Amino acid sequence: MKTIFAEIITIGDEILYGQITNTNSQFISSELDKIGVKVIRHISVSDKANEIKNAIIEAETRADVIIMTGGLGPTKDDITKKTLAEYFDSPMHIDLKVMQWLEDFFTKRGRELSEINKLQALVPDKCKVIYNDWGTAPAMWFEKFGKIFISMPGVPSEMKNLMTNKIIPDLQSYFKTPIILHKIVHTIGIGESMIAEKIAEWEDNLPQNMGLAYLPNYIQVRLRLTGMGENKEILEQEMQAQINTLLPQIEKYIFGFDNDTLEQVVANLLLEKRKTVSTAESCTGGNVGHLFTKIAGSSRYYEGGIISYTNEVKTKLLGVNPQTLAEFGAVSEQTVREMAEGVRKKLGTDIGLATTGVAGPDGATIENPVGTVWIAYSDENKTLARKLTLVNDRLQNIQFASLLLLEFMRKNIG
Amino acid sequence: MKTIFAEIITIGDEILYGQITNTNSQFISSELDKIGVKVIRHISVSDKANEIKNAIIEAETRADVIIMTGGLGPTKDDITKKTLAEYFDSPMHIDLKVMQWLEDFFTKRGRELSEINKLQALVPDKCKVIYNDWGTAPAMWFEKFGKIFISMPGVPSEMKNLMTNKIIPDLQSYFKTPIILHKIVHTIGIGESMIAEKIAEWEDNLPQNMGLAYLPNYIQVRLRLTGMGENKEILEQEMQAQINTLLPQIEKYIFGFDNDTLEQVVANLLLEKRKTVSTAESCTGGNVGHLFTKIAGSSRYYEGGIISYTNEVKTKLLGVNPQTLAEFGAVSEQTVREMAEGVRKKLGTDIGLATTGVAGPDGATIENPVGTVWIAYSDENKTLARKLTLVNDRLQNIQFASLLLLEFMRKNIG
Repeated sequence: MKTIFAEIITIGDEILYGQITNTNSQFISSELDKIGVKVIRHISVSDKANEIKNAIIEAETRADVIIMTGGLGPTKDDITKKTLAEYFDSPMHIDLKVMQWLEDFFTKRGRELSEINKLQALVPDKCKVIYNDWGTAPAMWFEKFGKIFISMPGVPSEMKNLMTNKIIPDLQSYFKTPIILHKIVHTIGIGESMIAEKIAEWEDNLPQNMGLAYLPNYIQVRLRLTGMGENKEILEQEMQAQINTLLPQIEKYIFGFDNDTLEQVVANLLLEKRKTVSTAESCTGGNVGHLFTKIAGSSRYYEGGIISYTNEVKTKLLGVNPQTLAEFGAVSEQTVREMAEGVRKKLGTDIGLATTGVAGPDGATIENPVGTVWIAYSDENKTLARKLTLVNDRLQNIQFASLLLLEFMRKNIG
Repeated sequence: MKTIFAEIITIGDEILYGQITNTNSQFISSELDKIGVKVIRHISVSDKANEIKNAIIEAETRADVIIMTGGLGPTKDDITKKTLAEYFDSPMHIDLKVMQWLEDFFTKRGRELSEINKLQALVPDKCKVIYNDWGTAPAMWFEKFGKIFISMPGVPSEMKNLMTNKIIPDLQSYFKTPIILHKIVHTIGIGESMIAEKIAEWEDNLPQNMGLAYLPNYIQVRLRLTGMGENKEILEQEMQAQINTLLPQIEKYIFGFDNDTLEQVVANLLLEKRKTVSTAESCTGGNVGHLFTKIAGSSRYYEGGIISYTNEVKTKLLGVNPQTLAEFGAVSEQTVREMAEGVRKKLGTDIGLATTGVAGPDGATIENPVGTVWIAYSDENKTLARKLTLVNDRLQNIQFASLLLLEFMRKNIG
């Protein structure tokens, strides 16, 4: 089974100046990945004819499919179409179907179709036109010596629709694509190298048609197992068998699989167990509430919380004993336990969660350096607290403590 | 004045598979742009030695500076360092300063420095080590025939700190870069094209050595004026004169300049006026509290808040009249006003802020479609509310409403 290789060329000065994030390459890559086309390079070049041509010349020596976005607008600085016509030595003509579409498009919006916009219907003779139902510039499909060259507009919404609904099916029917599967294991609270040590033997013994990648993102590390095969069901089974061997070795750090996020896993767990939750936040300052409420439908289990940034709010609204604060301080196991219990009772939820700590850069003491955070979980049967020793960066401490609190709840929920 | 050309190579299978967005290239581009280095290409390749080498070989024919990120982790799939050592034909040695840093790094976290992690201290003899104060893998600086090759870790927080604090100053002193100054004007609550219309004449009349860029980011648009010249003081004066002409034309949308953020501007204003603030959040779910508390030193003016995700919390903790909720609903001017007043009194702060709305996708009614949000500001003299009509995306609605509430406070604070 021959692997199909692809390269993606994004065209536009705004990318090279750093004015926009190149999200098109990611989207195209993930779509191609799903059908087993292997993307071997992303290239971004400016809106200059020779830069575009050079990128295509280089790409066609390596890849079977070259997908381009950008530079198809009607203004002077958009030169991709002209450049492709030259490159494929093709005259251009007016495509009547595109012209009709343009007329309808502008009429519907109560605007006149200008001469400049009519140029969108001008297409190279040697390309197959891929009609764009979501915008004004059509996509183009060229073939040369069995290689495919596709040019799409750079507007993400148009590109995404064209890619998913037209380009991908066309590529699937043109090429005989191999079967590639991915399985992702999500971990939290363990470093990349610690995992690598724990699973070294397993990794070394993976069969030839499988490979493992570590994808760290803050305190979360994703393990991605990639497999290639001829039969989807057999490959799926072989890979699942490998995953099943892996799981017990790092079980306590795993919170999910494939497209899971910690926030969503925790949300599903609360729904499944029919538990409600509230939050008492000091150092995380509302971020735990934000993690809950950014998930749609969170009002079914998240009732609210108290951001107790001062000791006064801790005593007045959460009912923390002033004696506790005086004796042990705000950043202490005793205080965080009273906060979690306090918010649970005050809001009448099944679970109360709490954070208190030194996010930094101010507020550090000898006992509690920057990065010291106490987190707590409380339900009707138990109250548990844990001390975290995090990093020297305020925002990271807020994010890490928030996520580790969600994980602490996930593990201890009754 | 010779232009310095740069290329950026990001290394990692996860980029080519479309599993992460390549934000590193954008950040590096914008940093280089600020010092007048022209980025001519972005390349992303996989974690394979020959792919990395080929990308470098191609890049060095075109660029004066080649900046790489990724592939510097301690695990087997990270091969950038080894590949560079081979490429520059350089033996490797243990850098004692990096080793000391690693030992301190792990000791502080109460973890043992593993054999795998010790490999981070192994560096090619032919590179200048750029110490990474934000993580475990150092950056490397190679020179060959007057061209510069820089390799940084791919973790965005580490890369950004290295880039801003170490690489950029080093590049400026290595190359004779022209004098380029930037002045940024930050606006909120007005679209890019509306601004462009208002300031069209001013923009058309800018002198030849200045250019304007629109950098839109959600509801905030930054205007960046870039000037090039031979004398820094004169250029600075000329640019300030242009800015002074611009300001009155869009004054009511401007909240800051240069490195200002809305959060920091608001924080400075509260400190200057010696006012304290508290928050009552429904649809923003803690995100406004998070915006306040992500700023260091926020405990001097932010006392805390109540996340009132349910009506019960609104009445019980914020003192919203049940009658108000019954008559006007949770998403109403009346409710948001009572929330802001309630939290101000409950927490005893000078100012109370509140949000209530339909972030979506659930919860919409005919009167209140997704994107309807009420925000309020309350102090001892007045309570003001404003209705926002936002978008059809939950996370954006949370972010937009939070920022527009900060702006609402900035404008109305006494």
